[in-house]
Amino acid sequence: MESSFCKFPLTELTELLASKAPVPGGGGAAALAGSLAAALGSMVCELTLGKKKYAQYEEDLRELLSRAAALRTELLALIDADAKAFEPLSRAYSIPKDAPERAEIMEKALKAACEPPMEMARRCAETVELMSELAEKGSAIAVSDVGVGTQLARAALLSAGLNVRVNAKSMADRDYAGALVRELDKLELSCVPLAEVTYAKVLARIG
Amino acid sequence: MESSFCKFPLTELTELLASKAPVPGGGGAAALAGSLAAALGSMVCELTLGKKKYAQYEEDLRELLSRAAALRTELLALIDADAKAFEPLSRAYSIPKDAPERAEIMEKALKAACEPPMEMARRCAETVELMSELAEKGSAIAVSDVGVGTQLARAALLSAGLNVRVNAKSMADRDYAGALVRELDKLELSCVPLAEVTYAKVLARIG
Repeated sequence: MESSFCKFPLTELTELLASKAPVPGGGGAAALAGSLAAALGSMVCELTLGKKKYAQYEEDLRELLSRAAALRTELLALIDADAKAFEPLSRAYSIPKDAPERAEIMEKALKAACEPPMEMARRCAETVELMSELAEKGSAIAVSDVGVGTQLARAALLSAGLNVRVNAKSMADRDYAGALVRELDKLELSCVPLAEVTYAKVLARIG
Repeated sequence: MESSFCKFPLTELTELLASKAPVPGGGGAAALAGSLAAALGSMVCELTLGKKKYAQYEEDLRELLSRAAALRTELLALIDADAKAFEPLSRAYSIPKDAPERAEIMEKALKAACEPPMEMARRCAETVELMSELAEKGSAIAVSDVGVGTQLARAALLSAGLNVRVNAKSMADRDYAGALVRELDKLELSCVPLAEVTYAKVLARIG
């Protein structure tokens, strides 16, 4: 990987994503979508802060803004982290199936490749929760942006989850794989329905 | 708008999205998410073409690849189109409420601001359909990418939809607004369940 994907202009980034280059792939796309959701969270806070009608939420909104800004940069950084962790796995898959060292290298690469998407899933779950709070406390003029952030964070959570699941499935260490999948199930079971409720609230506020 | 958002590096783009600048907003984020989904569609085609196991789908995959590439660039171009259409609306909202010319300028701006997200919704619906075909015809090594593309296209469709709904709601011309919302409802009612089915198939293939 030459440099950070975060320095790539959108056009080049999507071209590279569309190519058969091993990275970025679905993991990087998930992290970027999560980062866009968190960015919308910041935007909604910025558009609400200072408005008389929402003065009662001032303190909460400052806290939400700071969390959203952190989530945006963390998720963006996970694009590169995912690429870095995926490359050794991509190399491991090209080791001949009968090579004696293959199993150990593969297992190590699979575990490492699960870490960035697992971290993405945690951050996207937080972003879904943040959006749910903004559906109550965010300015009416930005209500559609809360809905967009919610849908993108939900999609990014499930997408990061797929990247964990596909690698966990191939692991020899079933206890380790099971723990990853259980954590993921828990995040999804709590945050996917929450995202649906938030989206329904947004639709209701739009009327 | 100084230049195309497509030339912005990711970090700057997400910073601008997070700010209170009027554009990009939820519409631009939706278009970008849709473009990422279409890019993953291309990637899945590229990773499948030429594989003996999928030779029966060769012709279909070439057609899908060409559609995915077109969707990616069309959705990317809609980021700028959305910004261009949103700015007059943003200015219309700042016209004093009692100014006699306000209603006409506002109505024109609302109609124009609905066009890019409506076009996004159509393109995202096509992307959901494309992904559904790739869940059958795409290589097993890229099955998680089909799932990511599906979730992102679904989220982008609903997100573009919110941007149409929020502006359609304020229109004086209720027939025009109704036609937009009916087209949107139709796209969502057909493509959201299709995305859920595709995602379930992906989960089943991952096992």
